[in-house]
Amino acid sequence: MPHVIDQLAAAVRRTGNAVCVGLDPRWEQLPWPITTGREAEPNGRADAYLDFCCGVIDVVAPLVPVVKPQMAFFEELGPSGMTALAEVIRYAQERGLLVILDGKRNDIGSTAEAYARGLLGRGVSPWGADCLTVSPYLGEDSLTPFVDVARERHAGLFVLVKTSNLGGGMLQDLEVGKPSERAGASRPRRVYHEVASLVEKFSAETVGECGYGLAGAVVGATYPEQLAELRAAMPHTWFLVPGFGSQGGAAKDVAPAFDANRLGAVINNSRGIIFAHAKTEYADQFGDQHWQRAVEAATMLMIEQLSEISEN
Amino acid sequence: MPHVIDQLAAAVRRTGNAVCVGLDPRWEQLPWPITTGREAEPNGRADAYLDFCCGVIDVVAPLVPVVKPQMAFFEELGPSGMTALAEVIRYAQERGLLVILDGKRNDIGSTAEAYARGLLGRGVSPWGADCLTVSPYLGEDSLTPFVDVARERHAGLFVLVKTSNLGGGMLQDLEVGKPSERAGASRPRRVYHEVASLVEKFSAETVGECGYGLAGAVVGATYPEQLAELRAAMPHTWFLVPGFGSQGGAAKDVAPAFDANRLGAVINNSRGIIFAHAKTEYADQFGDQHWQRAVEAATMLMIEQLSEISEN
Repeated sequence: MPHVIDQLAAAVRRTGNAVCVGLDPRWEQLPWPITTGREAEPNGRADAYLDFCCGVIDVVAPLVPVVKPQMAFFEELGPSGMTALAEVIRYAQERGLLVILDGKRNDIGSTAEAYARGLLGRGVSPWGADCLTVSPYLGEDSLTPFVDVARERHAGLFVLVKTSNLGGGMLQDLEVGKPSERAGASRPRRVYHEVASLVEKFSAETVGECGYGLAGAVVGATYPEQLAELRAAMPHTWFLVPGFGSQGGAAKDVAPAFDANRLGAVINNSRGIIFAHAKTEYADQFGDQHWQRAVEAATMLMIEQLSEISEN
Repeated sequence: MPHVIDQLAAAVRRTGNAVCVGLDPRWEQLPWPITTGREAEPNGRADAYLDFCCGVIDVVAPLVPVVKPQMAFFEELGPSGMTALAEVIRYAQERGLLVILDGKRNDIGSTAEAYARGLLGRGVSPWGADCLTVSPYLGEDSLTPFVDVARERHAGLFVLVKTSNLGGGMLQDLEVGKPSERAGASRPRRVYHEVASLVEKFSAETVGECGYGLAGAVVGATYPEQLAELRAAMPHTWFLVPGFGSQGGAAKDVAPAFDANRLGAVINNSRGIIFAHAKTEYADQFGDQHWQRAVEAATMLMIEQLSEISEN
């Protein structure tokens, strides 16, 4: 089985774009053909999430390389939601998509390994994701078990490095280092640089044919200058860039995430695509009834926006 | 319904100890009466985890105030494991125990809220935990939704501040602050101090009658001097202290976690209690067959060890 990041690079080349569609099913925002009559059924919400996500996948599978289900929304529903999540992942993979599971898991030693074994590895774990997002607060020995399981199962990781939320800087942007070490430094070194170095080390040790390793990095779209800086500092690390669209990032902002071959990053958009039926520009044309056509139009628009920057 | 940390303080007073029993079911370490014949059944492992955890709960419920199930081991089994986890939590609560769910969850905005709504709140969420562990890498706005849901549901949190694993220091111990701000400081300020300040702020805003707030802190037992320093710096924050026993922490090391009233902390022990049947000192006496008696003996020993330090 090929290296998962080689698979991702091949999928980006095949589809001609680096769009990741975020599957964040929120009950209040689902179109009414999905929710009607469901509230009263025992597993109604889980069934609705499954139908909705499979409906999105049907539309985007021929268009984009990868989808990213958000575990929190499935977990909110209880075990029935977690069962639906496993079905969504399998459905996406059967239709040719790669799946990055957004769980931001983290723990140490054999506990971290248990998360990795439960979530990572197509066809060989209960949830079977191709990649998983993980959080780094517990340090290097909390990431190593995830890397080991990913390597063994031809799967991958995306470690939180610099996130796109407003408050992300509170911890990630803290200036670090002993004063003595910093006297001559031209620019401050921050917490996220330390995490970036660690992730790049893991990726440099696990490169595939495309030159990228299996430990990717989550780097927000709201800070283009940091994207550029990290792209240069992390030459073996594939980026997952959230924050496009609804979190404020635009196509030009994500341009620095890509390498000279237009590889090295996927750009996530969740609400801007999956809830396009409710956006002003699509509501009149498609509405809830034809929500899948709104998903298609929004996906095509994002593909076009990204292609414009890559031609510049 | 009383404030959850008031409930915890009352349970510590009632039982006369601050032991938290960690429910970390690892298949390879379960006693044979629990595993025999189970491997071949469809949900055999999940059934075994449920039986084992309920068996531990039967023993410890009259003895200790609180248990801490580790989500990773249940998640490793897939949806059937997550169903078993919900049953374990309910069983513990029915027997009078408080439940800290160890999930180390984290995300931002409405996604963080979805985790909190799925996991927190006795009887009002699918998993119904009294408290949940959360990770702080995404910053203040990733913790606020958890605090809001906890407050609304009379539940609580334990935020990772200083963990007991060897590599935890990589990120948590980094010296922070602009050099100009640090010129006159007597001791370095580190990443974990920033997280500690934030958690203490949340707790100061949400104090119950016992003087502690609903945002607790995870502070490892392997660093007694840091426990003492953080105890002084976080007067409104209840501590969850892992690392007792198998991770190297001893009774004297955790003494600084308590306040003058012997409140303010619970001390977790997982493997040292639940897998006591395999320890040299109990294996001959009880063995796998009488594993619950080994759990009881190990729990009583830990209670005694903690009582000795609190008498000094």
